[in-house]
Amino acid sequence: MPHPFRFELLAVDERTGARAGLFHTPHGIVETPCFMPVGTRGTVKGVWPHQLREIGAQMILANTYHLALRPGEEVVAGLGDLHEFMHWDGPILTDSGGFQVFSLNTLRELTDDHVVFRSHIDGSLLELTPERAMQIQEQLGADCIMCLDECPPHDAPREQLIAAVDRTTAWARRCRDSHQRDDQALFGIVQGATDRELRERSAEGLRPLDFPGYAVGGLSVGESPEEMYATLDFTVPLLPEDRPRYLMGVGRPIDILEGVLRGIDLFDCVMPTRNARNATAFTSRGPVKMRNLKHQNDVEPLDPDCDCPTCRSFSRGYLRHLFVTGEMLGGMALSVHNLAYYQRLVRDLRTAIKSNRVLEFHAAHLAGQADGP
Amino acid sequence: MPHPFRFELLAVDERTGARAGLFHTPHGIVETPCFMPVGTRGTVKGVWPHQLREIGAQMILANTYHLALRPGEEVVAGLGDLHEFMHWDGPILTDSGGFQVFSLNTLRELTDDHVVFRSHIDGSLLELTPERAMQIQEQLGADCIMCLDECPPHDAPREQLIAAVDRTTAWARRCRDSHQRDDQALFGIVQGATDRELRERSAEGLRPLDFPGYAVGGLSVGESPEEMYATLDFTVPLLPEDRPRYLMGVGRPIDILEGVLRGIDLFDCVMPTRNARNATAFTSRGPVKMRNLKHQNDVEPLDPDCDCPTCRSFSRGYLRHLFVTGEMLGGMALSVHNLAYYQRLVRDLRTAIKSNRVLEFHAAHLAGQADGP
Repeated sequence: MPHPFRFELLAVDERTGARAGLFHTPHGIVETPCFMPVGTRGTVKGVWPHQLREIGAQMILANTYHLALRPGEEVVAGLGDLHEFMHWDGPILTDSGGFQVFSLNTLRELTDDHVVFRSHIDGSLLELTPERAMQIQEQLGADCIMCLDECPPHDAPREQLIAAVDRTTAWARRCRDSHQRDDQALFGIVQGATDRELRERSAEGLRPLDFPGYAVGGLSVGESPEEMYATLDFTVPLLPEDRPRYLMGVGRPIDILEGVLRGIDLFDCVMPTRNARNATAFTSRGPVKMRNLKHQNDVEPLDPDCDCPTCRSFSRGYLRHLFVTGEMLGGMALSVHNLAYYQRLVRDLRTAIKSNRVLEFHAAHLAGQADGP
Repeated sequence: MPHPFRFELLAVDERTGARAGLFHTPHGIVETPCFMPVGTRGTVKGVWPHQLREIGAQMILANTYHLALRPGEEVVAGLGDLHEFMHWDGPILTDSGGFQVFSLNTLRELTDDHVVFRSHIDGSLLELTPERAMQIQEQLGADCIMCLDECPPHDAPREQLIAAVDRTTAWARRCRDSHQRDDQALFGIVQGATDRELRERSAEGLRPLDFPGYAVGGLSVGESPEEMYATLDFTVPLLPEDRPRYLMGVGRPIDILEGVLRGIDLFDCVMPTRNARNATAFTSRGPVKMRNLKHQNDVEPLDPDCDCPTCRSFSRGYLRHLFVTGEMLGGMALSVHNLAYYQRLVRDLRTAIKSNRVLEFHAAHLAGQADGP
């Protein structure tokens, strides 16, 4: 692992394999398990950067695809780098852009050499190669960057899934060979959908490349939660124990819990902020729909167990009013709260792992979610 | 003036009549000249309440009409009052709802007794009387409340303007007679468009009612700036010197300046936040359109003379990116900046008045606005 990166395991739960650790990066130390708020276009939607810090966020994610299209990686580089651009001096991770290339664009050419796609912004034809994905992410300047991978639909024919695994492995080698900056940790991505044999094939291809971190990709793309958990059951043990493990794009609070129980260290998901803008709050008692008439006269805070700026400031009745009238502060306040909820979840998980109570925490969490997980 | 209200004049500029003072209210002391950010529906759009405090806002305005329709004044009262509702423990002023009744609604009946209008939300038929305007504002619980007035178009026939003045006077008496709460200061509103005789008629009708504050209404409704300033020239001297004077709904920074020079103490306007959402910034060098391509690679802050959270955090290039991509943080950041600009303007004006430099400040301000006032 390139200096100054270091992954320090502080505790591994004997019963489950859940891990608590410290991930040292050039922009600071990340306590794991860690949830990364998503700042797709260099901003976590509706949230000031200092508020992310205030609610305990330690590392955030930005999307290479979106930033490469607008404003362009050279513009970001000219304005400092991603840290300075978005005024976040903590660690940042960028994805490779591959996921969006495969999910947002219908017209494309895919060969072993490259993928060609149409911009979802202006329809222009763009090309991505492993080398180009490295160049872009080097210009963006995140601490952790990702190999370009192929993300086929989870229910693609097996031949396509095999080809995607092998292409992902070949591209990972090209990424590793072309990546220059030693102040960035390049993560490999294991593909293979929900197929144990393919996940093994993928992990076996990537392990010799000795990446400083490994991600599990291709999950939370339409398979059931049970399939996802089962896939983690047989995939995580294929990854080196001494490297951080990142479950990409996951997920609901229960998915974070189940992932941590299976030995995952890093998570990201748009759900806390997206749900917030749609007026759905995560709370210690389960999800709450803020537009519901029943909140109209409710003087209580959103979540009595939460000390975030939203719960310290506003009643449920006021938050409902903000959503009913379409006021910006509604989405802003709920985004801060939902992110605080996720941060509290991983903080509590870290504490539980270190004190050998993670299974008990899991049971208590499920029991507390009155309205379902 | 009802206890605990008190208006303390600290300085009156000999050359202009510009005043610096302290307006004591149940929720704190307001330094005048004061600019009130507008929280139409109980939220200053895109801004957290603690940020208003941080940038120096002392008193804010909320709109009775909008709050009476949604969520309803009884809901606000049930959630505490406006202060608790919106988590702002400083002074608040509510308008009477009259302006919106006359500007947002086309179908209505107007008699000496009442005005009937259709809700712009759901088309339902609603009635407003002076007594009802008082009831609603008592339930909302602002520190300063306004008499119901009639706001005709500025270019209405003279007979209509005269009738509006007389009706406004008659309604002001009914407001005063029905208003109960002695922890609220009820302001009278002088009408009369740009006509000196009508303004005199209006002020003469209101002065005997001995209001603790007087507003100049019916300006910034389509007349030219020169007509507005000329109207202030002959209207402000008609108002008692020992009461705060409030110029309603005004305006551009230059209008604030010109109003202060003519002896106005309080202002409100949606312009700083509305322009912010439309990507226009107020700066010490003049207005700046943030979508302009020329900002793309600009590492400089929006305004080198500004120490607001936006200017301390973000480059012009980043702010442009936020607007080009439609990110919430763009409007949020520019709203905070524009409000900070207005607060700095009135703070500097207070300082200038106290040190007998207000005309010099006026000249320097105009000279600094490279791109026009």
